[in-house]
Amino acid sequence: MKLYLTDASGNSYKVRVLASILGVPYEKVYVDWPSREHKSPAFLKLNPRGQVPVMEVEGKVFWDSTAHLVYLARKFGGEQWLPTDPLGMAEVMNWMAFAQNEIYFGLQWARGVIVYGIPGSLELFQGHGRKALEILESQFGKHEWLALGRPTVADIACYPYVKRAPEGRIPLEPYPGVNAWLRRCEALPGWLKLD
Amino acid sequence: MKLYLTDASGNSYKVRVLASILGVPYEKVYVDWPSREHKSPAFLKLNPRGQVPVMEVEGKVFWDSTAHLVYLARKFGGEQWLPTDPLGMAEVMNWMAFAQNEIYFGLQWARGVIVYGIPGSLELFQGHGRKALEILESQFGKHEWLALGRPTVADIACYPYVKRAPEGRIPLEPYPGVNAWLRRCEALPGWLKLD
Repeated sequence: MKLYLTDASGNSYKVRVLASILGVPYEKVYVDWPSREHKSPAFLKLNPRGQVPVMEVEGKVFWDSTAHLVYLARKFGGEQWLPTDPLGMAEVMNWMAFAQNEIYFGLQWARGVIVYGIPGSLELFQGHGRKALEILESQFGKHEWLALGRPTVADIACYPYVKRAPEGRIPLEPYPGVNAWLRRCEALPGWLKLD
Repeated sequence: MKLYLTDASGNSYKVRVLASILGVPYEKVYVDWPSREHKSPAFLKLNPRGQVPVMEVEGKVFWDSTAHLVYLARKFGGEQWLPTDPLGMAEVMNWMAFAQNEIYFGLQWARGVIVYGIPGSLELFQGHGRKALEILESQFGKHEWLALGRPTVADIACYPYVKRAPEGRIPLEPYPGVNAWLRRCEALPGWLKLD
């Protein structure tokens, strides 16, 4: 298994975390972001989206961290991280989708404006991001984890851009439940620290 | 099973399509969008994201159409629409994620600016949307379906906001492969027409 990644990418980090927890070995292929290697013809041939992470495994190429988490969880995690019963899988996917919606185009895009100068309205993205944090805070007022009362791929998918929200000028201090959940994630056996 | 929905919502439509294909009965609960019922305290209690569709089933509430498609496919579709083997599920999820990324915040948000007056840059959203269509056009130059060489939940998830791209002033004429795929979807037994 090869994972094309950068150290700074939160989506790459998600996949590294689950591989670490499950003890799955893989080859890291670093993509040089400053020289825009991710937009080079060779890389676009691998992934036309021009993004990391990319996973090459068993003759297939997957472009999205959601697919990578699903692959690792199903191949190496049994029913623990992503169960296959209809209700259980739907509950996990409900929060996986949240990671790709409000968390990504809220928290991550706000960070993108500040850190990377991506185009778009900081205020608009921060608004979506704060909504995401309020929903998470409400969830963690009642539950320790996002789905099924235990850690799943949903927690791993939501963690990175929540943790980095302050880089988009969205302080996490008003969300004690979210902070406690971040610490619970970090205490999981095999968890990797986000640099 | 109850589905809270609006007729205009593309995400609600996805779920209706799969329920129709699989012959699954459910109760429709219409949410009054013009009066902003989806932002009312009662609705926000059901779904703090303030969006449709929402599925109530077996004592659970799911807020995201991805979760609804997963539930229906796993409960009523056997291995056909969403298989559980690691590679197969990852391949489907790779495109389910695409539906939530470039297709949603590209094609749908461009449409949102024009049709609903949502804030944000039309040009930025159209750029993401055109990138999505180019990637799809490339896929359909080589394959009939998005994943596994057969129709899956990935096709259903990607269809609505591709079909409606012209409402965001992104014409579909330059993408013959995409148009042919839209027609293949529409020819599936049990498919519902998008109004």
